Amino acid sequence: MTDSDGALAANRTFYRAFSERDVALMDALWAVQAPVLCIHPGWPPLIGRAAVLHSWHGILNNAMAPKIVFHEGRPLVHAGLILVVGNEIIGDALLVATNGFVVEDRQWRLVFHQAGHQVTEIEDPTALPRGPLH
Amino acid sequence: MTDSDGALAANRTFYRAFSERDVALMDALWAVQAPVLCIHPGWPPLIGRAAVLHSWHGILNNAMAPKIVFHEGRPLVHAGLILVVGNEIIGDALLVATNGFVVEDRQWRLVFHQAGHQVTEIEDPTALPRGPLH
Repeated sequence: MTDSDGALAANRTFYRAFSERDVALMDALWAVQAPVLCIHPGWPPLIGRAAVLHSWHGILNNAMAPKIVFHEGRPLVHAGLILVVGNEIIGDALLVATNGFVVEDRQWRLVFHQAGHQVTEIEDPTALPRGPLH
Repeated sequence: MTDSDGALAANRTFYRAFSERDVALMDALWAVQAPVLCIHPGWPPLIGRAAVLHSWHGILNNAMAPKIVFHEGRPLVHAGLILVVGNEIIGDALLVATNGFVVEDRQWRLVFHQAGHQVTEIEDPTALPRGPLH
């Protein structure tokens, strides 16, 4: 299994924990020693395992939370850390999410999650921006 | 200079290039060999140096672009890659941005930028989430 395969498998596990509301699986996915950062859409950044996991407990235990679908992500492999970017569909909303993984105790673990709403479609990514200025 | 100092200095250079609309400085900041990913607020992800820099050229050359202010970021140091997270203020909007840096040719260079609007204030980060469900 390549590093890329390992990170993509961990990414699928993350979305399984998310969609199945599996708190224990979510807890086990986040790194223990490495510093962690999580930015939910619209939220201020959460830094540190306690704050990050507390936010996920609230989300996963919320019976009103809509269904989530994740499209297989695309890995960007850096030495020591792999970023996986892809689209999430939560209820009617389209989001872009980036997840960062490192190896800790021989397992790929999450150190980063940032998700935000995608409101523009740019069919030609080299076209001049038509969306928000930044 | 520690790795953390180096990444924070590169982060300040990024916001200098952004606020001063310095296209050459922005171009020089993004990694050449390492894979790059940029997600502007509301946009789909841009992958690859050509697409990323093209988007920045459009933004930096837009005379209508509002002023940007960046508050000193907080570094999260991973082996080989440092994430810096902080708030941007663009016009009247409050955003959260994460920037990722690696060393390439002995310089700290950007491989990742993701920014999104911050709409909720959570004073106690361990409080139950009151904002969007995710």
